[in-house]
Amino acid sequence: MACQYFAPCEHGAGSFTIAIPKVTFGRGTLSEVGQRVTALGMKNVALFTDPQLASGPYVATVSDSIKAAGLSCQIFSEIRVEPDETSVDSGAAFLREGNFDGMISVGGGSVMDTAKAAMVCALYPSPVRHYFAKPIGEGIAVPGPLLPHIACPTTSGTGSECTSVSVIRINDLNTKFVFASPYMMPDQAVIDPACCDSLPANVVASTGFDLLSHAIECYTAKAYTQWAEVKNPNARPLIQGANPWSDLAATKALQIAGEYLVRGVADADDHEARDQLMWGASLAGMAFGNSGTHLPHALSYAVTHLMNDITTDGYAVKSPFVPHGISVIVTAPATFRYTAEAAPERHLEAAQYLGADLNGAGLDDSGELVANRIIQLMRETNMPNGLSGVGFGESDVARLTDSSIRQTRAIANAPRDSNRVDLENIYRDAVSYW
Amino acid sequence: MACQYFAPCEHGAGSFTIAIPKVTFGRGTLSEVGQRVTALGMKNVALFTDPQLASGPYVATVSDSIKAAGLSCQIFSEIRVEPDETSVDSGAAFLREGNFDGMISVGGGSVMDTAKAAMVCALYPSPVRHYFAKPIGEGIAVPGPLLPHIACPTTSGTGSECTSVSVIRINDLNTKFVFASPYMMPDQAVIDPACCDSLPANVVASTGFDLLSHAIECYTAKAYTQWAEVKNPNARPLIQGANPWSDLAATKALQIAGEYLVRGVADADDHEARDQLMWGASLAGMAFGNSGTHLPHALSYAVTHLMNDITTDGYAVKSPFVPHGISVIVTAPATFRYTAEAAPERHLEAAQYLGADLNGAGLDDSGELVANRIIQLMRETNMPNGLSGVGFGESDVARLTDSSIRQTRAIANAPRDSNRVDLENIYRDAVSYW
Ligand SMILES: [Fe+2]
Ligand SMILES: [Fe+2]
Repeated sequence: MACQYFAPCEHGAGSFTIAIPKVTFGRGTLSEVGQRVTALGMKNVALFTDPQLASGPYVATVSDSIKAAGLSCQIFSEIRVEPDETSVDSGAAFLREGNFDGMISVGGGSVMDTAKAAMVCALYPSPVRHYFAKPIGEGIAVPGPLLPHIACPTTSGTGSECTSVSVIRINDLNTKFVFASPYMMPDQAVIDPACCDSLPANVVASTGFDLLSHAIECYTAKAYTQWAEVKNPNARPLIQGANPWSDLAATKALQIAGEYLVRGVADADDHEARDQLMWGASLAGMAFGNSGTHLPHALSYAVTHLMNDITTDGYAVKSPFVPHGISVIVTAPATFRYTAEAAPERHLEAAQYLGADLNGAGLDDSGELVANRIIQLMRETNMPNGLSGVGFGESDVARLTDSSIRQTRAIANAPRDSNRVDLENIYRDAVSYW
Repeated sequence: MACQYFAPCEHGAGSFTIAIPKVTFGRGTLSEVGQRVTALGMKNVALFTDPQLASGPYVATVSDSIKAAGLSCQIFSEIRVEPDETSVDSGAAFLREGNFDGMISVGGGSVMDTAKAAMVCALYPSPVRHYFAKPIGEGIAVPGPLLPHIACPTTSGTGSECTSVSVIRINDLNTKFVFASPYMMPDQAVIDPACCDSLPANVVASTGFDLLSHAIECYTAKAYTQWAEVKNPNARPLIQGANPWSDLAATKALQIAGEYLVRGVADADDHEARDQLMWGASLAGMAFGNSGTHLPHALSYAVTHLMNDITTDGYAVKSPFVPHGISVIVTAPATFRYTAEAAPERHLEAAQYLGADLNGAGLDDSGELVANRIIQLMRETNMPNGLSGVGFGESDVARLTDSSIRQTRAIANAPRDSNRVDLENIYRDAVSYW
């Protein structure tokens, strides 16, 4: 890192700000949601979930607990994986009609992100795109508080229960876009790792690489001191760069991913490993929600949208479909090979936290070391071999870059600057790893 | 640790809950308080501080920023160090008369703790003692929300800006008592390390040992899984024991104390060291506010109250007076010698995080190692030599124990059980270390 935060150095921004929801973690905590609903004063509750989960045991546990508290909830489940503006609009319409005073979300990132965005659009009516940064949107700020929100994740990857971020698909631009507001932070995250007991191995792997990449992107991001100061504290962007707090959560999440990812994928009965991954996903959410991700996420949105005829086992979604975690990890090794020279200590430390053997390695090796450790984990969990493993080839590089180049803030959060040619080179390097 | 949280083991409590305020850390952030006041919708602001700070530059910076935001604030500064029930009552009366809709606290733990307790008593009138646990108080829960509160610490020790805890002196019982409620968590902590630039060395040392002891007490506390389950999530005590999150904040705080305490005490111009200590104090607050301290704090309250004719340089307080951090640290080495056998790995790791040389040491040495490392830091910062250094001797052990034995929850949060004789032995061992 050019600047070690508190050591004398050329400062841009002189401060950092962090926030997380109240977090409860433990097996059985889903059955306590009703008591929490009561304590938050909710009377008329919307429960957002997805079509598969709607008829399953977790939603039943939550809605039973709400009934036991003497209240009822109405379920909205028209949420697609990779939610788009239509998902948000229909969620917002549901909220407006129901006149709700509280939100429970039970699901993965798609569900929680739709819940956040739908509340924004229901309470402060405007097309969701207007809340995106210019030039995609109008860059308008969320004007005020949303409904009290208890977020209950059912996968160990997104970390959305701990962030004020929502990621929404923009179909006509072939990408996704991140928007955020302090008002979008859930009030409580209720994290019950029992939700992951029955996840297929491939879903644990994909979501696990999402958490891994959140953590390593945070840890290698530009330092907050390298961003320019924004004078108005109320106008500071959430993508503020790495800071002492995101470092702490990210390094622990990296250790967890390095130690437990392979175990958690291999054995659904390894509760210790799966519980650790669930906790690691929340930690990584606390990290990136207070620092921002960078290139692997910026490059992933194009992968999600431009894929050819590809399916992924374990997801009840029609093809073509590449899960988010896979779309991120296929370019991650190539990215860290590119970014390492700008922050070699951080990349070396990240490799070490992930469990790489550093024997004899120096700073010049840090990019290769972290890339190789990620590749090793990918191979041990049957992940696709880079972009070629999800149907892309050299000939797709230009259009992938066209889509990704719009993610300006995330690209600028990387430790090393990159132009169009650099992004093309990263995609090219990501076609095949072994 | 008997139980590694997520590994298969005999669980008592099956979950843990954590919360922190929104935290902003950086030099110059005090001048942004006015903009934050506006964003929180405050119109009529109470500013709690102490008599020394009231006429100093930090309060001026904050009140100027509030003026610049087009608002005004009324200052309450009748807060004594080690606030008692009278301080709380007068603060509550001030709040009731002023009809305020927001609270800013600028000061150390005494100021922030008084602000929290005064809001409770102003909004839900009842003697503060009724909010303490039985048998000292009535054990009544804080019934509802307090005013929005921005807490601005001016010392690097208490961590109160990041906790929902208040510690109040009970004169007729010769002790202090902790009470807590989720409603007492400040909304925002604005941590400007420039406030510590002019602190005398002895204050940096005393507050630094407070942070150090918060961190090591959290890290060596009973695990949350060793406490009995409380079925109602809304009734769970804040002193819940060590958990993965408090471990993370505590271990980082220990590293900071081990590396920067001596430097920060020795040199007021060492901004890196003092900034690190300020950050470490907040981290330690995030840790103990979500786990609880144990014996050194339980034993300290008697030291504060029963002292003989003793003064401490650097504090504008009439004698006898022992600063909180000193009252904690004088018994800490003796405590960890006692508790180590119940959690030797944790004590060994704590010694290592504090920078002890572990060369050749085994688990049986962990108590001595951590005690000796603390003693080394005490000697390098001119701290008193145990209880004898603050005027106590063997003959005081019985009455110190009489006072401390009432701190039942904190005593039970220690990794090793202790009865009256054990506490006496710890006090006896703490009389003199070198
Ligand atoms: Fe992600
Ligand atoms: Fe303390």
